[in-house]
Amino acid sequence: MGKVKKIAVMTSGGDSPGMNAAIRSVVRTCAYYRTECIGIYRGYQGMIEGDFVSLTARSVNNIINKGGTILKSARSQEFRTPEGRKKAHENLIEHKIDALVVIGGDGSFTGGVVFNKEYNFPIIGIPGTIDNDIYGTSHTLGYDTALNTAVEAIDKIRDTASSHNRLFFVEVMGRDAGFIALNAGVGAGAEEILIPEEDLGLERMLESLKKSRRTGKSSSIVVVAEGDRSGKNVYELANYVEENLPEYEVRVSVLGHMQRGGAPSCFDRVLASRLGVKAVELLLDGKTNLMVGLKDNEVASTDLEKAIKGGHEINRELLRVSDIMTT
Amino acid sequence: MGKVKKIAVMTSGGDSPGMNAAIRSVVRTCAYYRTECIGIYRGYQGMIEGDFVSLTARSVNNIINKGGTILKSARSQEFRTPEGRKKAHENLIEHKIDALVVIGGDGSFTGGVVFNKEYNFPIIGIPGTIDNDIYGTSHTLGYDTALNTAVEAIDKIRDTASSHNRLFFVEVMGRDAGFIALNAGVGAGAEEILIPEEDLGLERMLESLKKSRRTGKSSSIVVVAEGDRSGKNVYELANYVEENLPEYEVRVSVLGHMQRGGAPSCFDRVLASRLGVKAVELLLDGKTNLMVGLKDNEVASTDLEKAIKGGHEINRELLRVSDIMTT
Amino acid sequence: MGKVKKIAVMTSGGDSPGMNAAIRSVVRTCAYYRTECIGIYRGYQGMIEGDFVSLTARSVNNIINKGGTILKSARSQEFRTPEGRKKAHENLIEHKIDALVVIGGDGSFTGGVVFNKEYNFPIIGIPGTIDNDIYGTSHTLGYDTALNTAVEAIDKIRDTASSHNRLFFVEVMGRDAGFIALNAGVGAGAEEILIPEEDLGLERMLESLKKSRRTGKSSSIVVVAEGDRSGKNVYELANYVEENLPEYEVRVSVLGHMQRGGAPSCFDRVLASRLGVKAVELLLDGKTNLMVGLKDNEVASTDLEKAIKGGHEINRELLRVSDIMTT
Amino acid sequence: MGKVKKIAVMTSGGDSPGMNAAIRSVVRTCAYYRTECIGIYRGYQGMIEGDFVSLTARSVNNIINKGGTILKSARSQEFRTPEGRKKAHENLIEHKIDALVVIGGDGSFTGGVVFNKEYNFPIIGIPGTIDNDIYGTSHTLGYDTALNTAVEAIDKIRDTASSHNRLFFVEVMGRDAGFIALNAGVGAGAEEILIPEEDLGLERMLESLKKSRRTGKSSSIVVVAEGDRSGKNVYELANYVEENLPEYEVRVSVLGHMQRGGAPSCFDRVLASRLGVKAVELLLDGKTNLMVGLKDNEVASTDLEKAIKGGHEINRELLRVSDIMTT
Repeated sequence: MGKVKKIAVMTSGGDSPGMNAAIRSVVRTCAYYRTECIGIYRGYQGMIEGDFVSLTARSVNNIINKGGTILKSARSQEFRTPEGRKKAHENLIEHKIDALVVIGGDGSFTGGVVFNKEYNFPIIGIPGTIDNDIYGTSHTLGYDTALNTAVEAIDKIRDTASSHNRLFFVEVMGRDAGFIALNAGVGAGAEEILIPEEDLGLERMLESLKKSRRTGKSSSIVVVAEGDRSGKNVYELANYVEENLPEYEVRVSVLGHMQRGGAPSCFDRVLASRLGVKAVELLLDGKTNLMVGLKDNEVASTDLEKAIKGGHEINRELLRVSDIMTT
Repeated sequence: MGKVKKIAVMTSGGDSPGMNAAIRSVVRTCAYYRTECIGIYRGYQGMIEGDFVSLTARSVNNIINKGGTILKSARSQEFRTPEGRKKAHENLIEHKIDALVVIGGDGSFTGGVVFNKEYNFPIIGIPGTIDNDIYGTSHTLGYDTALNTAVEAIDKIRDTASSHNRLFFVEVMGRDAGFIALNAGVGAGAEEILIPEEDLGLERMLESLKKSRRTGKSSSIVVVAEGDRSGKNVYELANYVEENLPEYEVRVSVLGHMQRGGAPSCFDRVLASRLGVKAVELLLDGKTNLMVGLKDNEVASTDLEKAIKGGHEINRELLRVSDIMTT
Repeated sequence: MGKVKKIAVMTSGGDSPGMNAAIRSVVRTCAYYRTECIGIYRGYQGMIEGDFVSLTARSVNNIINKGGTILKSARSQEFRTPEGRKKAHENLIEHKIDALVVIGGDGSFTGGVVFNKEYNFPIIGIPGTIDNDIYGTSHTLGYDTALNTAVEAIDKIRDTASSHNRLFFVEVMGRDAGFIALNAGVGAGAEEILIPEEDLGLERMLESLKKSRRTGKSSSIVVVAEGDRSGKNVYELANYVEENLPEYEVRVSVLGHMQRGGAPSCFDRVLASRLGVKAVELLLDGKTNLMVGLKDNEVASTDLEKAIKGGHEINRELLRVSDIMTT
Repeated sequence: MGKVKKIAVMTSGGDSPGMNAAIRSVVRTCAYYRTECIGIYRGYQGMIEGDFVSLTARSVNNIINKGGTILKSARSQEFRTPEGRKKAHENLIEHKIDALVVIGGDGSFTGGVVFNKEYNFPIIGIPGTIDNDIYGTSHTLGYDTALNTAVEAIDKIRDTASSHNRLFFVEVMGRDAGFIALNAGVGAGAEEILIPEEDLGLERMLESLKKSRRTGKSSSIVVVAEGDRSGKNVYELANYVEENLPEYEVRVSVLGHMQRGGAPSCFDRVLASRLGVKAVELLLDGKTNLMVGLKDNEVASTDLEKAIKGGHEINRELLRVSDIMTT
């Protein structure tokens, strides 16, 4: 494998705040090392369609604070076929691209691993997803911002819940992982937090809500992860509680896609800047099949396949803190 | 009717940002005029139950920027009965309360009018509702804040809509009135705005969305008022469009109760301060059955019954602006 | 004067939030009426230098929520000379521009009036400045946003003032006008507000602060307009108070230029959209030398020279409200 | 030393966002372990004056999201004297307080260490300061929030800087430490960052700014830590640059005390909750003279004297990232 002279960068899968800051960092690091940088629009689909753009340090002025991704994102069915990947590879070769930075989640990394196996194409991943469900990094890009968005929204809901002595079920994002629910729940001072990693049973929740009212709490917030395993969605949960605890006036709020947008927090901007530098430097050093991430507050890299399969465990200590806070 | 020496204040109906600032203003204006001030918890229900608290200038320190209402709010079935109102009146008399400031919406004012007719009790209304659907004031308390909350949330949704070339249906509050939808829609640069005051038909929306895509728009936001008259709720609308415009990937977001909370905007805080002063001064001047509000940027009063019945028309010029902006 | 077929738009003088929304509105309204639209960079200076850009509806996608101005702004010495204006006119003629929309403050309008007199060139002004000091409109673009920015910053300062029982002097913008100081002061619950329109004397302030402490207030905020007429700047004021009221621990905070930036509020975005439509429609109707603005919540136009000379009076009722609130 | 049955908590030194969340956590953890909890107002000064309040789980409802500290904070000269500490100890004994949680910075911890040595009184510290300058924890309470506040303010300043092609010097807090400046600078995409840990000389800054302009950057932000070692304050720096680079129009903005206030970020609320639990559990386990903090994302404790003396090094990798980003 020869020296890397031209690096492509793309965003793939669900977007998250900080992706633009990571693009900027990749582009500026390339400029610093006098390496060409190409942006690929719409992830693997754009790679197949040859939807490329040349990026210079100036192209990424004033994007560090913008939500979304200037390179757009998409999911590509075609890239799951050998024909799709062949076309993608031909486009990379035609544009003399030597290496690739993929900003995305585990689905995007899986595509990268397959592609690397077939074509031996150097690839480094940057974890960009609000769900924080990736092994090998304590924080994914966008997670910190999504927590702040969720907590600010719940603060507002708390205002009206308190005024009316109501019980609110607030659904936050996190399909298979309760990171947002647990952290935003603790951060918002929720009375109960329901996450996929822990199924405490509906009975326990009823007990807890009853107790909460007895001890004089006049309003309550229950934070529910999308993927809660109670077998009920958030509306069914609310109905169930209203039937069993008629003293509560119950409301539901689904925070939804606003959690994916917004100006990134300082943390996510700094993280994006650090990971972008490291991704490019690894490629320039001839490395491949790694994901850059944060371990113990230091930038570190993890084997890409491990990152995909590894999973990310919920913090048991924080579960305990949550229990103590809501007593 | 003798001189007013003791004034009660309460919040009633759905809460809105700025209610605390209005309470503070009523309390401080009473202090300024050396008039006693009593807070009534939970609106008419608290009046019936005698749930009163003495309020001094210090009691309302540091609440001008708080969402919700420190006096709590509620809807009272009991106050709809003569017995309920009798109890309420007895409590007011027992506490030597001479006059009442009601912060709320038309339901709360209706209760006040009935009560005044039966007991000749002086009452002034301050319009507090995010819906802006009250005659006699250009702005209700909380409306401006709710607009900012909605627009900031839609800005975030726009980030992810743009990244994925998606079409979002965003439902905002406003059961019978499209004020929030129309203004937040224009403010957020929505491609379509569906409000109860205007039923353009689903066909026109499809046409418009088709055209929008043809002209190169890659993402779109449709803002829908809760009470849109298309006969479909926001999820049905989304399904309808997805079936008829398969080229669009459609998502739904219901902003919900977060629109009722949060720190009030400067506008709402200043408005609350102005209306609270006026309400107390009217009572001290022996006036009753009026609602204070904003007309042509000046504080003015309106007959309370007129305020209830009058309705508030949507701004036709703004509808035109909206049409031009989305062309 | 023939039919208007090509309209130029520019931003001039100090920038303010909402300018981009106004540019967008002018551009989209031109598109709606199938009229060409040209953007001029850096105000009159760019007009002299021929720094023009063609603008289509798509050019202004996703700028409604951006602070600053995509057309940049500047002050131009050269445009004060006949030679400068001659060059500017030649450039307009060369580009077949028939009419001009100027978004700016009174300095910018003055330039427009002179230019119109010399060259009979159609010109409409849109009031864009955070200072709200322009006659003929109740609100200038950016004023509402600046108020919210100031109030949110003072809320944060209040947190630390309360924790430490300190007295803060907070300087807000507004060189010759106390609009921001008075409204942000009332909105932030300031204990004192010092504005150029009213010089109450330093003695009165000392008295008031002494009294405030006696009545148990443990912290205080004094909001000062840049252009306060006490003859002392905010640091001198703070020193003066610290010397005379040694029981107070005094701090100063100058909010500064952050008040000029940030995403515009919903109000400013809607106002910008409305004024942009009106400005273009007036030009298409053959009108000139007018400023569009908001009167009694309706879009209205004012003779441009009147707008410059008229001045804008501080609201006496709000001064009274402020006095009552801080008693 | 007997069993701990009554724990006191106080905030001391400069306040920071998250202090209320930490108070809440200490109080709730005490309630969980059926241990009494006493709040001490105004830090060591309140301890000397016996300014105590009993705190229950309900006392701390709805404070997790409030800036400042409900227990107020102060610096106490009297506590530096043996007499002061004697009075303080007598008050603790009289109220049967067995142990103390001090939320504050190194000055507050120093007081605690001295007190513990004299009276063998159990004490645990929680690091609460926006400056992040404490050894033994990767993050102090309030630091993350202050970064977001600074970055959001600089984003606004960037809007107006860009519109006018100006160079802004923005001073952020951090008297002896450049953590806020370095992180907020990288997060805000600053062109230069001046911190006390690194004195690159003014010449280098001039060079860099010249180059930045040559490469087409039209506006620039230089973030300066309060305690920058160039020997010039931020205004002198600005003048120096304006004299040496007349092509730049220079402005200064001092962010000031707003960085100490505001609703804490989710991160700070969660951190506060975790540290409060740990602090109480350590005291109940008979431990003393420790500071709780975050190491490698886990809650850990550090000898209190080490925490005071240890210092906290700036991240060299982030300095490199900053250099690369601004190339």
